[in-house]
Amino acid sequence: MEIPSVYLERTVSQFAQLPGIGHKTAMRLVLHLLKREPSDVDAFANSLHDLVANIRYCHICHNICDSDTCSICSSPSRDHATICVVESIQDVMAIEATGQYKGVYHVLGGIISPMDGIGPQDLEIESLVGRVQQGGVREIILALSPTMEGDTTSFYIFRKIASHTELAITTLARGVAQNDQLQYTDELTLGRSIVDRQPFKS
Amino acid sequence: MEIPSVYLERTVSQFAQLPGIGHKTAMRLVLHLLKREPSDVDAFANSLHDLVANIRYCHICHNICDSDTCSICSSPSRDHATICVVESIQDVMAIEATGQYKGVYHVLGGIISPMDGIGPQDLEIESLVGRVQQGGVREIILALSPTMEGDTTSFYIFRKIASHTELAITTLARGVAQNDQLQYTDELTLGRSIVDRQPFKS
Repeated sequence: MEIPSVYLERTVSQFAQLPGIGHKTAMRLVLHLLKREPSDVDAFANSLHDLVANIRYCHICHNICDSDTCSICSSPSRDHATICVVESIQDVMAIEATGQYKGVYHVLGGIISPMDGIGPQDLEIESLVGRVQQGGVREIILALSPTMEGDTTSFYIFRKIASHTELAITTLARGVAQNDQLQYTDELTLGRSIVDRQPFKS
Repeated sequence: MEIPSVYLERTVSQFAQLPGIGHKTAMRLVLHLLKREPSDVDAFANSLHDLVANIRYCHICHNICDSDTCSICSSPSRDHATICVVESIQDVMAIEATGQYKGVYHVLGGIISPMDGIGPQDLEIESLVGRVQQGGVREIILALSPTMEGDTTSFYIFRKIASHTELAITTLARGVAQNDQLQYTDELTLGRSIVDRQPFKS
């Protein structure tokens, strides 16, 4: 399909490079932008310029932030002896949204995935080991996705830090999800939740 | 969900304003952009700036172009006596991609849709009537979507230009689509395709 304007074509191809957005969707998005006020589109463009110019990563936990240290790592009210290891920034936001966690984080920036060519050296694992070696850490929570890659990564990190015997290494509870129907729960999860059954709390 | 950076938040909310993109998808897209080279993201932003600064609409057919008159309207090899009336720029591209049409276009910029508050005065209908009144037009093809709104718009335009008796007013052929299975074709389409049956060409 020939696009009648080079400016349109260029913007459409930029959108089409985003994950999950094909050429037709990109065209729809750009034509939608053209219906908006030009100042709105300039604001969109400026937000992208500002993003790459100003975004920082916390030098401690590698979460996104606007300064050198994120608000969680610099907060005196958080428990700095408990580190929750997560794959991505979205996971930090998801756990923060629960309001159940008062410790700090360590963002790996991915998980070990040989299929995608991602090895331990591509992730922030050495810096995690460094935080443990500095001392003052009481617990490491391995909060990675319960997938093959997540489990591999958890095991790799466990081996790296298990020598610190004073350290509690924990992982997220697994089982049936709240409001899930038992008959539609997959066998592995259901089987494991029976084996790992817990005292009933009324 | 609290976003740890105002720059991230601003860009995510810009993406989330696009049609069909929710907050989570917007976050995924922006975090994807952050993994790319900063120069790539700047190129993305610049393409948006360039788009709004340079995009033009053809003063004859209202198609998108980079100058005052689009390449179709300014082409001497097109049949300027045949005007194909379409809803959007995407429709022009779709018809052009077939390679079957050698006339020119008229882009309405939408269809009459009282539900969305779009009336005839919001569309390029008067300018179409103006083109007809200028003379030299032999045929108007009403190539709008075969929906209630499309049919309403076609009928409205038909009434506006029907007084020009020298003008042939046509519409797209309707019937079963190429490679469609008859048993899955909707009743209306199948019924109409039987009533409008055509001489078999071998």
